[in-house]
Amino acid sequence: MMQPPPAQPGMRIAEVDTPALILDLDAFEANLDHLAAQLQGTGVRLRAHAKTHKSPVIAHLQMARGAIGQCVQKVAEAEVLAWAGVPDIIVTNQVVGAQKLARLAALARITRIAICADDPRQVAAIEAAAEAAGVRIPVLVEIDVGMGRCGIDAGPDAVALAKKIAGSRHLEFRGLQAYQGSAQHMRTPEARADAVSHAADLSRRTVEQLRQQGLDCPVVGGAGTGTFAHEVASGVYTEVQCGSYCFMDADYARNTDAPGFRQALFVQATVMSTSQPGIAVLDAGLKALSTDSGFPLVWERPGLTFVGASDEHGKMTCADGSTPELGEKLLLVPGHCDPTVDRYDWYVGVRGGRVECLWPVAARGAFA
Amino acid sequence: MMQPPPAQPGMRIAEVDTPALILDLDAFEANLDHLAAQLQGTGVRLRAHAKTHKSPVIAHLQMARGAIGQCVQKVAEAEVLAWAGVPDIIVTNQVVGAQKLARLAALARITRIAICADDPRQVAAIEAAAEAAGVRIPVLVEIDVGMGRCGIDAGPDAVALAKKIAGSRHLEFRGLQAYQGSAQHMRTPEARADAVSHAADLSRRTVEQLRQQGLDCPVVGGAGTGTFAHEVASGVYTEVQCGSYCFMDADYARNTDAPGFRQALFVQATVMSTSQPGIAVLDAGLKALSTDSGFPLVWERPGLTFVGASDEHGKMTCADGSTPELGEKLLLVPGHCDPTVDRYDWYVGVRGGRVECLWPVAARGAFA
Repeated sequence: MMQPPPAQPGMRIAEVDTPALILDLDAFEANLDHLAAQLQGTGVRLRAHAKTHKSPVIAHLQMARGAIGQCVQKVAEAEVLAWAGVPDIIVTNQVVGAQKLARLAALARITRIAICADDPRQVAAIEAAAEAAGVRIPVLVEIDVGMGRCGIDAGPDAVALAKKIAGSRHLEFRGLQAYQGSAQHMRTPEARADAVSHAADLSRRTVEQLRQQGLDCPVVGGAGTGTFAHEVASGVYTEVQCGSYCFMDADYARNTDAPGFRQALFVQATVMSTSQPGIAVLDAGLKALSTDSGFPLVWERPGLTFVGASDEHGKMTCADGSTPELGEKLLLVPGHCDPTVDRYDWYVGVRGGRVECLWPVAARGAFA
Repeated sequence: MMQPPPAQPGMRIAEVDTPALILDLDAFEANLDHLAAQLQGTGVRLRAHAKTHKSPVIAHLQMARGAIGQCVQKVAEAEVLAWAGVPDIIVTNQVVGAQKLARLAALARITRIAICADDPRQVAAIEAAAEAAGVRIPVLVEIDVGMGRCGIDAGPDAVALAKKIAGSRHLEFRGLQAYQGSAQHMRTPEARADAVSHAADLSRRTVEQLRQQGLDCPVVGGAGTGTFAHEVASGVYTEVQCGSYCFMDADYARNTDAPGFRQALFVQATVMSTSQPGIAVLDAGLKALSTDSGFPLVWERPGLTFVGASDEHGKMTCADGSTPELGEKLLLVPGHCDPTVDRYDWYVGVRGGRVECLWPVAARGAFA
């Protein structure tokens, strides 16, 4: 169910009720500008990933700075964007099931929407949905470039699948989806560079084999905030699919080969208990913060360490002299931005210490 | 934002769109009956914890079987229950901040609502909110019984705080909140029994000291699904606050001293890719499943092991001969029920293989 917003425009940030998802608008806009500048003149375009932000407002701001469209992972996310006028969307994922494919096909009448496939049976199912809806759907072949998750093998298997797509009456072969997700979170620059180099080699070879079979491959998509500089440099990728760059998080701060992004996303929480010595407890726990990539960091408060989350509590240890006041509001840097955003109904946009705007997390929970 | 329901009454379970939160109604009702039977004749009452289910429907079903009311952790949860006619609620937590306390005080006009405190400054803040609203609010003293999180020290500190409450014009001292949350997840029965025995000793001693000071202590509350048999046996606790018992999860299945509860809660997911050998990928990942207490189990499908979750994908390994079909729908047992439920807008209640009802997760995201 949708929750009421925790703030009103004009409030001071300390007046915002907690837990709240805070967006530092200066840092956020700087991140949008920074990525646009990094891609300038490379010939590689940004198709930003809406799985991170789940917001048509942010999608339109990214496109106003040159992004050619949006990626999503789910049909329900595509619906939210398409219904809000986003004109070009790729579902960078498999969509399995007749109900979902019918919803996807319906969107093809109001936006440009493409989808991925990694299995001939899916191609047949997408063709059936497109035919039933009387639309034409572009399809990318997802190839496994090292994640060992989804994706058909690069090379001949991928080419055979592309031919099946190209030979389907209501489909169009659009290109390759070649995302190396594991590489985003590898800890050394060398490991990230090697992983992307391997992905680019597999993609390049597959593009060549497609050409030998007379199939043009207009799109090769992939890359994230951690590695996009490598995909751009490879000369193979035509679109990068960065998502987290607009917000950043504790995990990506440890891990990107293109520095210069600022932390723009925070969870504001209130100190709700200081009864136990050396401990302060926040009103934000597992339901308000994703902990899969580590606990959040306490922003600009040395001495405070977030050490444990239960359902509704966040526990911090306090070094000597750093214990916060009961009722004090602190900013946390989420460990992982995407699943943290997905817990909230509202972004609270702040600038100069004041609330400037409220934006709905319109595709929150849109996981169908 | 609220998502549309993934099902309609009458559908077969295999027709329910995914990811979906499935409630096996027979198992769920058996769990409600089982706990009611366990408490029968003990003199200890159930005040079920709504932080698990977030549903006024389930609250009313629990109370129809003898629960005397509900617990919540958050004012926003209390609002959802009070607005749906739940007549007796304890916020088993500190509530810090004037905005939230004003919302709490407003509820005191339509339901019986009590709150916890572990700090004299909070008692003053609750008194101010009650005075401003012209209501009287019962307050429990939360004591630390071994979690090292919230709670004032048992004994004289707790007694002093109780006296401050009893001496406040718009407050009433209701009793002790003495929840040993860590004990719920200790791995051996001996460790759980020892932890609760310590908590009961601290509570008993504090109750005696309160009596010596002329303060009656009508309520001693605590306990969860993992340990309630011990709190009941202690003779100190008057109310148990079990939450997960109605659903169960993979973690509690490993860990309860009162067996007999059945797994009633599942996430249904679809196999969306089988392109990589020995692997099958589900359409439910970190956004659809809480992984803080371990990955989900695959229900009644030996050979399938859930081994990794990314934002929208769940990765399973498949032993020889166990690979599921592309498009097949599987049931997962969540690792941790509370934060999993909080990701969904709808329960899909099933019986005999068919959808019987849809219930809103009305307090989803109610973390303020």
